[in-house]
Amino acid sequence: MSRNTTELFSEIAGRSRVVVENITPQVDAGRFPIKRVVGDSVAVEADVFGDGHDIVAAALLHRFGDGGEWHHSVMRPLVNDRWTGEFPVDQVGEYQYKIAGWVDRFGTWKRDLAKRIAAGQDVAVELLVGADLVHAAVETAQGRDREYLAEWDHRLRGDRARQQPREIAESEELSSLMSRWHRPVATSESRTLTATVDRPLASFSAWYEMFPRSAGKNGKHGTLKDVEARLPYVASMGFDVLYIPPIHPVGRAHRKGRNNAEQAVPDDVGSPWGIGSEDGGHKSIHPSLGTMDDFQSLVRTAQGHGLELALDIAFQCSPDHPYVREHPEWFRKRPDGTIQYAENPPKKYQDIYPLDFETDAWESLWQELKSIFLFWIDRGIRIFRVDNPHTKPLPFWEWVIGEIRRDHPDVLFLAEAFTRPKIMYRLAKAGFSQSYTYFAWRDTKWELTKYFTDLTQTSLREFFRPNLWPNTPDILPESLQFGGRPVFMTRLVLAATLAGNYGIYGPPFEHGWSIPREPGSEEYLNSEKYQLHQHDLERPDSLKDFIARVNEIRRGSPALAHRGVLKFHEAENEQVICYSRTAPDQSDIVLVVVNLDPHHRQSAWVTLPMEELGLPIDRPYQMHDLLTDARYLWHGNRNYIELEPASGPAHIFRIRRRSRSERDFEYYL
Amino acid sequence: MSRNTTELFSEIAGRSRVVVENITPQVDAGRFPIKRVVGDSVAVEADVFGDGHDIVAAALLHRFGDGGEWHHSVMRPLVNDRWTGEFPVDQVGEYQYKIAGWVDRFGTWKRDLAKRIAAGQDVAVELLVGADLVHAAVETAQGRDREYLAEWDHRLRGDRARQQPREIAESEELSSLMSRWHRPVATSESRTLTATVDRPLASFSAWYEMFPRSAGKNGKHGTLKDVEARLPYVASMGFDVLYIPPIHPVGRAHRKGRNNAEQAVPDDVGSPWGIGSEDGGHKSIHPSLGTMDDFQSLVRTAQGHGLELALDIAFQCSPDHPYVREHPEWFRKRPDGTIQYAENPPKKYQDIYPLDFETDAWESLWQELKSIFLFWIDRGIRIFRVDNPHTKPLPFWEWVIGEIRRDHPDVLFLAEAFTRPKIMYRLAKAGFSQSYTYFAWRDTKWELTKYFTDLTQTSLREFFRPNLWPNTPDILPESLQFGGRPVFMTRLVLAATLAGNYGIYGPPFEHGWSIPREPGSEEYLNSEKYQLHQHDLERPDSLKDFIARVNEIRRGSPALAHRGVLKFHEAENEQVICYSRTAPDQSDIVLVVVNLDPHHRQSAWVTLPMEELGLPIDRPYQMHDLLTDARYLWHGNRNYIELEPASGPAHIFRIRRRSRSERDFEYYL
Repeated sequence: MSRNTTELFSEIAGRSRVVVENITPQVDAGRFPIKRVVGDSVAVEADVFGDGHDIVAAALLHRFGDGGEWHHSVMRPLVNDRWTGEFPVDQVGEYQYKIAGWVDRFGTWKRDLAKRIAAGQDVAVELLVGADLVHAAVETAQGRDREYLAEWDHRLRGDRARQQPREIAESEELSSLMSRWHRPVATSESRTLTATVDRPLASFSAWYEMFPRSAGKNGKHGTLKDVEARLPYVASMGFDVLYIPPIHPVGRAHRKGRNNAEQAVPDDVGSPWGIGSEDGGHKSIHPSLGTMDDFQSLVRTAQGHGLELALDIAFQCSPDHPYVREHPEWFRKRPDGTIQYAENPPKKYQDIYPLDFETDAWESLWQELKSIFLFWIDRGIRIFRVDNPHTKPLPFWEWVIGEIRRDHPDVLFLAEAFTRPKIMYRLAKAGFSQSYTYFAWRDTKWELTKYFTDLTQTSLREFFRPNLWPNTPDILPESLQFGGRPVFMTRLVLAATLAGNYGIYGPPFEHGWSIPREPGSEEYLNSEKYQLHQHDLERPDSLKDFIARVNEIRRGSPALAHRGVLKFHEAENEQVICYSRTAPDQSDIVLVVVNLDPHHRQSAWVTLPMEELGLPIDRPYQMHDLLTDARYLWHGNRNYIELEPASGPAHIFRIRRRSRSERDFEYYL
Repeated sequence: MSRNTTELFSEIAGRSRVVVENITPQVDAGRFPIKRVVGDSVAVEADVFGDGHDIVAAALLHRFGDGGEWHHSVMRPLVNDRWTGEFPVDQVGEYQYKIAGWVDRFGTWKRDLAKRIAAGQDVAVELLVGADLVHAAVETAQGRDREYLAEWDHRLRGDRARQQPREIAESEELSSLMSRWHRPVATSESRTLTATVDRPLASFSAWYEMFPRSAGKNGKHGTLKDVEARLPYVASMGFDVLYIPPIHPVGRAHRKGRNNAEQAVPDDVGSPWGIGSEDGGHKSIHPSLGTMDDFQSLVRTAQGHGLELALDIAFQCSPDHPYVREHPEWFRKRPDGTIQYAENPPKKYQDIYPLDFETDAWESLWQELKSIFLFWIDRGIRIFRVDNPHTKPLPFWEWVIGEIRRDHPDVLFLAEAFTRPKIMYRLAKAGFSQSYTYFAWRDTKWELTKYFTDLTQTSLREFFRPNLWPNTPDILPESLQFGGRPVFMTRLVLAATLAGNYGIYGPPFEHGWSIPREPGSEEYLNSEKYQLHQHDLERPDSLKDFIARVNEIRRGSPALAHRGVLKFHEAENEQVICYSRTAPDQSDIVLVVVNLDPHHRQSAWVTLPMEELGLPIDRPYQMHDLLTDARYLWHGNRNYIELEPASGPAHIFRIRRRSRSERDFEYYL
């Protein structure tokens, strides 16, 4: 037998009559924590019930960390034996929560007493039953309560109680005293569940990615100092996070040339992801970019601009990486004595040596990789964008993120995994704070509706935090190749409003780069991955002001923050998508309407759920377009929308539910 | 931190790269076993995936008990990283199952080799990589395989391999050898899950309930011998289980009279559920019913008629029960020194003393209750119908059923809990083999469709086995009070065909008893619970032949056995319900059509999913009504049905998909 029933016998404490099950939220039966950010509250539900007709009570217990005191809060019954409660989270780190249930013998007695009195029964003995319960509570009570309870004990045994039992059955004071001091015969507790609580940036952030080496002037290799000079530009667009690709020395062996040419010419700078040379590896800075002092200066100055620097962590090595020489045991050897380079047969990537996670020396490898994170944490970094985590073992991520966050719970990890959905979700469960998504390839209304409904309405929302990128250095999606400026605007609006986290790769995004290396490719022509580029930030066609406006709208809208609930609405045109985001307290509602066709004017009748959005049926309400500052009066649940790609392919409306009428003027009455 | 990451470090074995998650079936993350019967197979699915591009493999492991050897079977990938496998269960008891996943390094090598060859690459070094894998397998291999593998090792290192690598890449022999002997670097295993396997009767049974004391003649108190004489009658109707209410001595104190009168008159026999008198308690037989020898004779004779006797277990006592005197610690005392009788305030049941499961002496109480089951098991009983289990603690049931089944895995338990759904489901999880349902109150098409869809299409089916009763001694539902004979026929057909287990309380059912104690009540007038009744089994209006026919149909139909899949079909009339049951191998399909209106003829167009049922689009097919033996030719997916309550309110069709036409005759061609 798998369940040792003898064990069960002693384990369950025979008098625990209440069952707690089906707790939400939880991830894989508590195998992984749920995720929240500081300022959230965790709404917990469970099925709680017992045998027979006795009244059951339940409490939600929570604590910070795993050693502190448990805080209790009362749970309320909903319907069908479902109970609910919540607790706030206000510190970064891990919280624990569990549910306790018990038979409320005093409450049952009080309920039954009232029924007996109503039926005209003699309750003399029942009053003594109650007195015995109160007497037991006296034993546990402290302070004045002890005296009060002793008085009640006495009162319940007296003549007056028998003459006026209703007073006792209805006494709030007695109930309140007993709720504090009555100890149940036995309590049943659920298993303990965990919530990882991050700082708010984990759930609400706008990222900007740029290549430091492209930040130079006059054709020179850019430096960290140049990036520092670029900070005001990035900050002016309203971003929170500046993410830079790897800044380590770049390998020479098999270095790739421009446009991924197999042979580099002498001037070619190589891919920043070909990490490691005689100048150092993952803990070094490329000499052309500057010094560690420059780096720390950049981190500090960025903070002054309200920007946080995110580093790229790519666990792979160029053949010149010091690890190859110092730790050959971390790489796989081929029978001819060479080291196994990266492959996706028949493709070969001879400029990259993957780490061999199946090595006997896996423990020292894991420790070294962990030390890379710690190295940059010591230098002020608190956000890591992890390159291709899905090509390293999932147990490694669970371990390393757990290790780092134990001492540095404010550190955030973004998983750059574009792979099969279950692997992406498992990475998020394993501890990644944010995740790249399929957003770049979700263009149509049906695709967007389906995908974002899945991400926000299923249990995924408990652990998977989407970060939406319309482009990356690796991904110039087809939609951006053919739609011109309008599609850049609509993809930005969608990315910025469908979820809490989004990012762009600039300046190619704000400059509308749209030419692929070859037809059908999603690689940029003359990609910055393999060469420098110097960008004219003042190009008149730059989208920077539009981006700044969108980010300003985001920051000013509680509805667009991570807790804003997403809901899609009917728009009678497949090219027009319409959705709302609603702040949990309903104080802010934003309605986004986007023309997904970058070439033609599209119109649609849009239908809104009036009651749900708290909109008046009988009066007009105001739609305030935060992009253009235009205001429209709408009426009823169906209204007409028309969007011209060239002038404005999207609305971001704030719904102003209260529109004034003549009745609002004093002289009207 | 709740997860001790240092522990994780050692626990996970750093080189296990494969993840196994989301296994189905399982109940509450493995907290409870799934249920099956002998002859079933358990189809298991899981998400299995790893990092990177390597090929992953998975195996389903199962064993009987918890100490035996694990049997491995290969799992097949479906889509989206979902894998499937199955194992047969052919013994009564508990099975364990789990899933193992690993990186298939040899398979990956072979796949990549083929790609390299196709791309015209030099594979000399790759062949040596493969040779090293084979070499390692030689070390583990035994017998002739070892020699064969050694040959392959040699061959892979030779000139011929370099000249004809495709032969190797395509070799089935090598793959087959390696599948047996190649050992992965590391294997990931899921947690172990459990399946409770019962004998088939647990899932497919027809129950008949009767009061032994009503089996007498000439007004005399019936005896177990009279029941023995009644066996041919019960068997002739085709039942499997004969269930009798408690046969123990009946208490005298506060005994209830006829029709639940508060005062019994001297001749009143009392309720069989008022258990215990000076003649004994739960391990004794009422002297008027006979002796223990009579009981064992009844058990044996029933077996000869293909009937199994089910006993009623009601854990409650009359004030005269020996326990009250011998074990006052198992009852709750009131402050006036009396023992607490059963109550549902303001109602009092002074003829019943409930056991106090919150007593300090709960362990001795639990052991005694367990001994009651064992007592009757020793006397040949293997089925218990447990009275009101929802008024005793759920942990007690989990313990006692586990204890009993450890030594007697063939014992079955039916939970008589008519209470809130989550409690009923928890009782089933805790170990009850079958459960009463809300069937008695599900009359309309919408109710029946919703309820049986929930029971058969959700995870409930893994642990909750419905047993459908159109009536019980406690329940004369309103539908039976007003519908006359047709409603008895339709309720029987529904009960017998909607699920694997059903039962009736007779002879009142076959005799169409329909008069309640008072209007609005669901109690029988002159209920057998409080008085004797002697039934004329040969009443001309008896439904016994109809019942026999229905049970015969059930026994002869694989589709109506427990594995037959239930599906509702469209019938364009709210009074007509239509559903099919399909055997897993599609060898048998039964279509049931019932007129739910007992008063009027109803007709409907019925729509069938032709492809799903394997029905021909272009030719007629035959509908064979197993109730009347009539045959109809149907054509296409829509056909007309008309049901007259008085003559035949239901069809039970066997669908004969192959209907002969002129083309089936030799001379046609």
